[in-house]
Parts: sequence; structure tokens; C-alpha cells
Amino acid sequence: MTHRIRVVYCTQCAWMLRAAWIAQELLTTFQDELMGGGATLEPGTGGIFEVYADDERVWSRKDDGGFPDIVELKRLVRDRIAPDRVLGHADRAAARRLEG
Amino acid sequence: MTHRIRVVYCTQCAWMLRAAWIAQELLTTFQDELMGGGATLEPGTGGIFEVYADDERVWSRKDDGGFPDIVELKRLVRDRIAPDRVLGHADRAAARRLEG
Repeated sequence: MTHRIRVVYCTQCAWMLRAAWIAQELLTTFQDELMGGGATLEPGTGGIFEVYADDERVWSRKDDGGFPDIVELKRLVRDRIAPDRVLGHADRAAARRLEG
Repeated sequence: MTHRIRVVYCTQCAWMLRAAWIAQELLTTFQDELMGGGATLEPGTGGIFEVYADDERVWSRKDDGGFPDIVELKRLVRDRIAPDRVLGHADRAAARRLEG
């Protein structure tokens, strides 16, 4: 099954580079899952910075208070499009936080 | 009217960075036209490198013989999604070639 990522960014805030970096991180980690689907960079306005996995919003700068940590974002995307995938250090870091 | 760009690249050939660069060039030049649509990076295989503007293929590495020149690509995309836009140096360079 193919999947899609979408990163909506504010052009007035000059966040294209940030959005492109995040898209490339996700394309690298979820290369097989995104085959035939992909990651879309979508220009927006008004301070928007949102990430969608298969049309489900997994991050919103306004609601979640800032930009996503890339490791946390990968776990959120993984939970939606590849729940059986083990992310290695990202999962171990999350486990440590739960234990701590 | 909103428009979409799609860049399909071969992951086996490690062309993600090239595809991401081209997508960002197009997002910068056609920011207003791509608002609400965007540029999609789509992983593929087998040496593919193709660029689509609103589902019309404007470049194919296999058919067009290599990678696109970025100035030529912007003219091809402009002709599809913003035919009234003047691209400045890109159009002047094309005019010089026609005159030459």
C-alpha cells in the first residue's frame, strides 16, 4: 500500500527550506512506504506549518506549540503509515523517556 | 487556480537530493501558482527521473536524454501552469538562442 506525506509551510515566514529538510528526512526513512505516493511541499501563508500523513494531520505548529522534533515526527508518521516498523534509536529514546 | 508539480526520482540512483533541489527551485519561482497545490517528491526505481506539471509530463530522463537544464525546465513548467508569466533571464536566453 502506498502512502503520502504533506508538509504545508508559510512562504511569508520563509519556511520552505525547513519543510524541504523535513520532507527529505521522511522520504529517506519511509522510502518504501512512500514509493508511488511521495512527500508534497505545499506553500501556504499566515504562519502555517503542518505535517500530514495520509491526510491525517500529525503536526500543527499552532496547536502543538512550535516545530516538531524530527525524531518525534518520525514516530508520529510511523504510527500512521508503517506501525510495524521499528525506528531503532527513535523508539529507544521514547522508551527511555517513558521509563524515566 | 491552483497547480501541482511532481518529481519522480530513482531511489536506487540516489537522486532524491537532485529531485529536492529541482522541487525547491520550482516552488520558489512558482510560489503563487503552487499555493494550495505544491510540489511532490515521489520515490521510484529503475533510473526514472520525470517532472510533471498538473499531470502533464514535461520532462523524462529517458525520453529527453538526461536531466533537465533548470532554466529550460522552468520555461516548460511556466508554459503549462502560468503561460502569461515572464521569466526574465530565462526568456531572454531562449530568445537569444532562437535569434542565433
